[in-house]
Formats: sequence, structure tokens, C-alpha cells
Amino acid sequence: MTPDSTMKVKAIDWQAGELYLLDQRLLPHQEVWVKCSRVDEVVAAIRDMLVRGAPAIGITAAYGVALAARQRFSEDADGWQANIEEDLHALQASRPTAVNLSWALKQMRRQLVNIKAGVDPFPALSAFAEAIHQADLEANLLMGKLGAEILATNQDHGREVMTHCNAGALATGGYGTALGVIRAAWERQVIDKVHVNETRPWLQGSRLTAWELEKEGIPALLHVDSAAAHQLKNSPISWIVVGADRITAQGDVANKIGTYQLAIQALHHGAGLMVVAPTSTIDMDIEYGEDIEIEQRHADEVLCAAGQRVGADIDVTNPVFDVTPADLVDYLVTEKGVIHRPDKEQLQKLMSRKSMH
Amino acid sequence: MTPDSTMKVKAIDWQAGELYLLDQRLLPHQEVWVKCSRVDEVVAAIRDMLVRGAPAIGITAAYGVALAARQRFSEDADGWQANIEEDLHALQASRPTAVNLSWALKQMRRQLVNIKAGVDPFPALSAFAEAIHQADLEANLLMGKLGAEILATNQDHGREVMTHCNAGALATGGYGTALGVIRAAWERQVIDKVHVNETRPWLQGSRLTAWELEKEGIPALLHVDSAAAHQLKNSPISWIVVGADRITAQGDVANKIGTYQLAIQALHHGAGLMVVAPTSTIDMDIEYGEDIEIEQRHADEVLCAAGQRVGADIDVTNPVFDVTPADLVDYLVTEKGVIHRPDKEQLQKLMSRKSMH
Repeated sequence: MTPDSTMKVKAIDWQAGELYLLDQRLLPHQEVWVKCSRVDEVVAAIRDMLVRGAPAIGITAAYGVALAARQRFSEDADGWQANIEEDLHALQASRPTAVNLSWALKQMRRQLVNIKAGVDPFPALSAFAEAIHQADLEANLLMGKLGAEILATNQDHGREVMTHCNAGALATGGYGTALGVIRAAWERQVIDKVHVNETRPWLQGSRLTAWELEKEGIPALLHVDSAAAHQLKNSPISWIVVGADRITAQGDVANKIGTYQLAIQALHHGAGLMVVAPTSTIDMDIEYGEDIEIEQRHADEVLCAAGQRVGADIDVTNPVFDVTPADLVDYLVTEKGVIHRPDKEQLQKLMSRKSMH
Repeated sequence: MTPDSTMKVKAIDWQAGELYLLDQRLLPHQEVWVKCSRVDEVVAAIRDMLVRGAPAIGITAAYGVALAARQRFSEDADGWQANIEEDLHALQASRPTAVNLSWALKQMRRQLVNIKAGVDPFPALSAFAEAIHQADLEANLLMGKLGAEILATNQDHGREVMTHCNAGALATGGYGTALGVIRAAWERQVIDKVHVNETRPWLQGSRLTAWELEKEGIPALLHVDSAAAHQLKNSPISWIVVGADRITAQGDVANKIGTYQLAIQALHHGAGLMVVAPTSTIDMDIEYGEDIEIEQRHADEVLCAAGQRVGADIDVTNPVFDVTPADLVDYLVTEKGVIHRPDKEQLQKLMSRKSMH
């Protein structure tokens, strides 16, 4: 279940009761691991984007709950279950858009309420966080297989694909969602090249996805985001493959800013749009994409480059996600199965399954 | 004919027989004027993008010819007309995509062949270059008026517009093409706000257009290029207004990379696409956009930011222009008149006019 390439890139490591995160702000030039022993360090790591990517944020938050429980229990063995609420809220508030964070916290909360008073909660909770981590990796391997199968059999324009942002090993528990499909498709030799959008403002494409693809030896070509249409027109690209931060009950997809634009480009150029995300990304409590809170980040992310101010004095809007309506999505690939042209009925059916088979 | 706002921003100045260029690589933080007394300095200034924008490149090249003639005549009063060919070729090769450069060189060549042997060519050629410069400014003022009239009467979505790159005073002899229309529309109080694409990789939007709009006091909002669709969906934007670097006989438009993508977004969201360019941008010798040479610039423009390497080790494609097919263009605004849905027949008719009336 875990081929070699699974382990080439990872961003989250749990060792001897401490959480280690690869600082993604410093990639690709420095590989610095940051140790988090306390929940406030975990909250800061999520908020400051030391760790990013919807599934990775969820996994990190799960470990954060285990660390919080250890601390709260050591301070007050009887009151820890009440006191930890503050930490759960802080984790919840660290990033607003990705639903995997809420999902992971809900999973951890279900565990912690069952722990008997006076019993050290850390062994059970850390084991459960590890299980969430492992399940995410396995989900990615399965989605990789499912997605690669679709790519293999639908190549009207040719054997190249495009991806946006980083939905790779760095964004998940390992292997990646969108990049997991690309990894699997490369292993199966059904794609020849990956076109990478640089993904302003944070450059997840040129910094992170490029770095992962280089480590895998998968041929890749980088361009600025606004060259995507030019590349779609002039290269044999059959698919745009992306991840997701939240998917609504109707199948609308919140993902990195620019995804909506790419979905329209895919439609115009006759390429397919494949969204790859575990079911923890699907939020059946929200009906439409318009109801998703879109995180606005600081203007400096747009106005500054490499720490230097480059832009003029101008008002900035920096929405870091956008919403792609369900009717622009060709395939949704999850660990519970694949949906062609997602809608509410199919999503309800999918979510009612315990697992794929 | 020259309202106050014409003079607020300029990038090309001809003083006492010397050419002064505002170094646009250093804007918006430093306003440094560079003096060019020799044609090789002019060639370098165009190549290195100290000056940029199709009309501004044409005007600069025209002054470059005058400077070349002065030098060649001082070296060899009889042979200068033969010797200057080398300079004309060097100017021609300095940037490949914008046709205004060829156009200006053709105009200057027509003058210089008529100059009698042994006569100092500099006074006549420098006066002619100044006339080209002045005519460009006047064309922009006229196009501003024509374009603003269209904006005033077609505002289905609301009173906001979007622009890409910098087609402003900095890109022209003054006032601007696309930004000239926006200036005129603001003066007429028919628009409320300008949405500015930052325009990677060179950031003409956040560095230059933002700077010009700030100087004019026109309300503006900056976003990363891939947020354009999100803004079109969520703001009352009726028009995307852009310049052009070359327009073919069929009406296909080569302009800054990303324009093609925006044209598709305009179509999808029901906004209009207005291309504003003087007739010197129209190349009746090329039929289709596919035949335009698209300049590829260095990978470092994409991989580095503020002089620092940010991207991973990856192959890069950096096409700095793209082609928007004529059928995605709603209006072409020139100094000889306006074309709705440009095609070959209308372009031929337009080009056959001496002037608008």
C-alpha cells in the first residue's frame, strides 16, 4: 500500500510525542523542521502557514489536540476536558476556509469526551491523531489510483496535465491529492508532463509543487498564472487536476484563488477539470459555494516579494480561495469513489458509504 | 487638446537633442531618469525594459534613429545613410512582438532617404521623431474620448472596470491607451473604480498602473492575476479595458500575457472587452495571431522576486504576450475610429482612412 514514492516528500512527522513540521515558508531553498510541543505553537504554525494544505491542516490540528490534552491534563487532571475547549477554539480559528480542520477537531472531540476522568488522555489521543494521519495517506494512495485510471482513458488533447497550487505530499499526510493522482499517472506512464501554475501570491506552484515534482523526476514546466490559457491552447493538455479546501453539498468547490478561473479555461479549451479531495473536505452542512467564508489575507502578500515592497500605494484585495461551481467540475475523486459531474444526490450517496467497497 | 492630467505622468522626454527615459524597472519607489545620447543606449533601454509599452517603444526608437543619424553623420557625412542601416537593424531586433517599433522605424526611414547628401540629418529627423511623439499623445486623447463614450453608455453590470498590465502614460507618448480611456471615463464621472491585475511576471499592474492611478486619484483595487474571475463574478465590472502590442489584419490581438485568459473570463461573465490602440499597432501584413512572434523572456523573471531566487529547480516557459482571437474582442478603439467586433473588412476600411473625420 505504500510504494517508495510515498515517502520521498513529507511535511508532518510525529516522533516520541512531539510534532515536527517542515516549514513550508522556507521551501524550496531551506528544509527546516520546526518542533511543536504545545498547542499554541500548533495554532501559530497553521495561522502563519508554516503548514498549509487542507488535509495537512486537519492532521496538524489533530496532533495539536493531543498536545493540548497532555498540557491541560498535567495542569489539572480533573478539569482538562473543560479547559481544553479554549484550545479547540483557537485551533478552529487558525484558518477559516478549509473544512478538514473542523472535521479533524470533530473527530478528536468525539474521542476525548469518552476518556474517563483522571485518565491520562495523551496515549489515546495521540494514537488517534496518528490514525487520522495514516488514513489520509492511504486515502491519497487510493485516490491516486482512481484518478490515474480516469486520466489514462481520457486523453483527447494529449498526455499532459496542468495543476494549480500545491495539493501534494506537502499539503497532506503524504503522497498528495491532486499531485497523488499525478504521481500515480506518472508511475503508470500515462502522462508525459505537468504544467505548473506558479500560484500567486504565495507561489505554492513554483516553490512547492515544482520542488515535489523535481524530487520525483516528473517532467514539469512552470509558467505565470495568467499564461494558463495560452498553455492550454498551445500544449496537448487534457486535464487540469486540483485539490480542494471545502466542497459543499451541491458540489461547489472552494480551492486556491485561481481555480475558478482555470475551471472556465478548461471549459473553453475542452480540457477536463478533476478535483481530488478526501471526503473530510466535503461539508454537507453548507449547500452552496457562496456561503463559504473566503479567507482574506494581508495585502503585503501581494505588494511585497521576497520581503521587499514592490507594489505602489494601492488598495489590495487578497482573497486566497475562490469558488468553482459544481457544473464546471468534470470529476470529483475521493477515497470513497469517483463522481462524474458532482451534484447533491451523488454527494449524499457517496457520503453515506462507510468506505469505497 | 491637452488637459492637465495629460502631463501628470510621462516616461519619455526629449530635451536639447538628448533623450531622457524614466527607468520603469525602478518604479514605483524610485523615479530615475536615464539620459540616452547614443543609439546603442536606446537599444539597450528597449531590450532591458527600461522603457516598455508598444507605443512608447515606437517613440523611443524614433528618437533612437535621430541619435543614430547624428552619430553616423559626424563620423562620415557622405556614408551615413548606408551606415545607419546597422542601427536600424539593432533597434528592430530590440523587442520582437510590438509592431509599433517596426512602424516607427519605417516612418523614420521614409524621412531619412529624402535627406540630401552632405546635409546634417539631425534637425529634420529629431523634429520628425517629436512629431511622432506628439501625434501619439493626441491619438491617446482622442481614443480616451471615444472609449469613454462607449463605457458611459454600456454599463450592464455596473460602473467598475478592470485593466491588465500598463497601457498608460508610461507605455505611450502620454495619457495612455487603455488607461487613457479610463482617465477620460473618470474625468467624465462614468466609472467609480478600476480593478488592477498585478500582471506577473513584471508586475506592470502593481508597480506602474497602480502608480499612475494613484497620481490621478482614481480609486483602484489591486489583486493577483488569478483573482480576476473571482472579481468579475463578485464586483460590478462591465468592462475589461486593455492595450495591444500588435493587431493582425483579421483583428487578432497580441497583448501582455494574460489578456487572452481575461478575454475568455469577460465572455463567461458577460463583461465587455475593449482593446485600445493606435493604428500604428495594426499590422495588415500579418493575417492571423498564430503568425505573430511571441517573445520568450528569461526564466529568472518568473523564478526570482526582488532579485532573490524563490522558485525551485524547474523548467520555465515565460511567454510575455499572448494572442486574443478577434471574436473575443467587443470593441477596438483607435484614433481613426471605433470598430465593434473587429474583422478584416472593417480593419481594411479603417486603415484606408487618413484620419478619423
